[in-house]
Amino acid sequence: LKIAILPGDGIGPEITEQALKAVKAVAKKFNHELEYEYGVTGAAAIDQVGDPYPEETHQLCLKADAVLFGAIGDPRFDNNPKAKVRPEQGLLAMRKKLGLYANIRPVETFESLLHKSPLRRELVEGANFVCIRELTGGIYFGEKGRKDDGNTAYDTNTYTREEIERILKLAYEFAGKRRKKLTVVDKANVLESSRLWREVAQEMAPQFPDIQTEYMFVDNAAMQIIQWPKNFDVMVTENMFGDILTDEASVITGSLGLLPSASIGVFTSVFEPIHGSYPQAAGKDIANPIATILSAAMMFEYAFNLPEEGKIIRDAVAASMAEGFVTEDIAEGQAQRTSAVGDWISH
Amino acid sequence: LKIAILPGDGIGPEITEQALKAVKAVAKKFNHELEYEYGVTGAAAIDQVGDPYPEETHQLCLKADAVLFGAIGDPRFDNNPKAKVRPEQGLLAMRKKLGLYANIRPVETFESLLHKSPLRRELVEGANFVCIRELTGGIYFGEKGRKDDGNTAYDTNTYTREEIERILKLAYEFAGKRRKKLTVVDKANVLESSRLWREVAQEMAPQFPDIQTEYMFVDNAAMQIIQWPKNFDVMVTENMFGDILTDEASVITGSLGLLPSASIGVFTSVFEPIHGSYPQAAGKDIANPIATILSAAMMFEYAFNLPEEGKIIRDAVAASMAEGFVTEDIAEGQAQRTSAVGDWISH
Ligand SMILES: CC(C)[C@H](C(=O)O)[C@@H](O)C(=O)O
Ligand SMILES: CC(C)[C@H](C(=O)O)[C@@H](O)C(=O)O
Repeated sequence: LKIAILPGDGIGPEITEQALKAVKAVAKKFNHELEYEYGVTGAAAIDQVGDPYPEETHQLCLKADAVLFGAIGDPRFDNNPKAKVRPEQGLLAMRKKLGLYANIRPVETFESLLHKSPLRRELVEGANFVCIRELTGGIYFGEKGRKDDGNTAYDTNTYTREEIERILKLAYEFAGKRRKKLTVVDKANVLESSRLWREVAQEMAPQFPDIQTEYMFVDNAAMQIIQWPKNFDVMVTENMFGDILTDEASVITGSLGLLPSASIGVFTSVFEPIHGSYPQAAGKDIANPIATILSAAMMFEYAFNLPEEGKIIRDAVAASMAEGFVTEDIAEGQAQRTSAVGDWISH
Repeated sequence: LKIAILPGDGIGPEITEQALKAVKAVAKKFNHELEYEYGVTGAAAIDQVGDPYPEETHQLCLKADAVLFGAIGDPRFDNNPKAKVRPEQGLLAMRKKLGLYANIRPVETFESLLHKSPLRRELVEGANFVCIRELTGGIYFGEKGRKDDGNTAYDTNTYTREEIERILKLAYEFAGKRRKKLTVVDKANVLESSRLWREVAQEMAPQFPDIQTEYMFVDNAAMQIIQWPKNFDVMVTENMFGDILTDEASVITGSLGLLPSASIGVFTSVFEPIHGSYPQAAGKDIANPIATILSAAMMFEYAFNLPEEGKIIRDAVAASMAEGFVTEDIAEGQAQRTSAVGDWISH
């Protein structure tokens, strides 16, 4: 098992460290040979080499079977619209260069955290769906720039049939293994790119007769996620809509700090928590490492096809939560440190 | 007072009829001379004249001091990505031709409907903010089309400095009359158009020293609306983000069927409920007319600068709700018909 570890910014280093502990423990238990190497990204990489996704890091990822990622982003760059190099560009470069076309985010509730959900319990209890976001196309990567002495700005949203087919195929596979319902989210009443999405989906749907394909406008989806989250099974959408909807979906559970993600790629796959770099907590040993540890579980399942190993990690996480051996953000009683939770889960 | 009435599709005709009753009653009480004329739009207009926003209707709107609008949209067109003419195009043509650059949506809770909110009561109770969406720019109106034999589709998101300044100015005015906080929502970490938005906002902010300007990424805003709705006072954003966020914001109150909107324009202004054309209920006299009646109240306030007249309508609506004289969607006891609620509020 060859892993590239990209800790990134903020709390990234301390949470990836805990996930690595879990990975090591499981590798040892199952006698897997484990190789790992660190790479720099984000603000840290800008400071060191002036590039948020340096070529060296990229080569490291290409050689790896999977990438374990922390978080990037730094407040120094956020309110400076004129900054030439931003940490997020590293994330986008990584996605593009590794061909990470599908971001997979399971939305799950944890019984013990339901009282933290902003939604009424009966609406969200038992909600369980997967958001699949196209990650290498759309307005993120289309041509953009300025005209008229900088007084006009533009971005281009582009999709090709191949890009849409690739992600829909993956989405249908997920739906086939789950409750067999796929919701395709677009804005086909306004956008030409969405009309192509819908056309392709309508062509593909008959090939999956056991799966119910449903079409939903993005504005409607933004409402349904709050109103009827249990109605979703697999939701698939384009890059920009996915950015908004997956974040929205992540907070309805009350367990934002616990949700992992996988980005499936052409060259390798990347596993990371969905939360950000949380700079205020950096270095304090208080951040919740569970989302990153669960991302490592997804890595065993998706990248290595080792579901049993993944399950052991999941079970250990569940046990730490059942015991209340957790960090301050979710602790009811005594709060534990990041490193202590990592040790506990990996022991 | 010269009003154009565009009933539109689905329940549009029956709900605008109730709003007109209220307008007539108030006009009579205050001795305002009232002139009104009907125009066709939407699917109805496609069926009649092949154009969802016919020139005749446009001329009618141009002559009017305000437009009272029902709803448009028809399921016959929704799942047909290849339909050449769609009802929504009429809406977009109307926005563009009338220069309706600012869509204003107050998000308010009604005590008696809080139990219908998907959010926990303590989070949403007392939430009161205004969403301001840019309505004539962005990806809705940028160049769009197909390439490569139809296998590549694109949409262009464009904003000019003038467009951004105009809407931000309006947003600052709103914030000045309220709790003096403006949240500018964008995706400046990815989009060039958003970077221009943020640049312009950062230039304008010092001119409004008593107003706190806050910047928020759209994905974060999608979370905050659910998590801390009370933190918002005035939120302003571009067209596509506004489409998603205003719909999301509208459901947190539990009173979607009750929320009005105003679209402020260069040539005239349009007042309409935020809910859709609800085709299943069309012609059944069961749809809730309150959002449209409250839109009429906004019309008195914003288009005619007659706040007292607006308040009388609001008070009558509040009374109907206090009495429980309401339609089936919100009735606790005996449900009333659309027309009966309209009569009650206007008597
Ligand atoms: C940091 C930003 C560029 C990124 C995105 O918009 O994709 C983030 O919000 C995410 O969802 O991973
Ligand atoms: C019908 C559609 C074109 C429209 C939009 O996207 O603007 C609607 O969703 C709205 O918000 O008024």
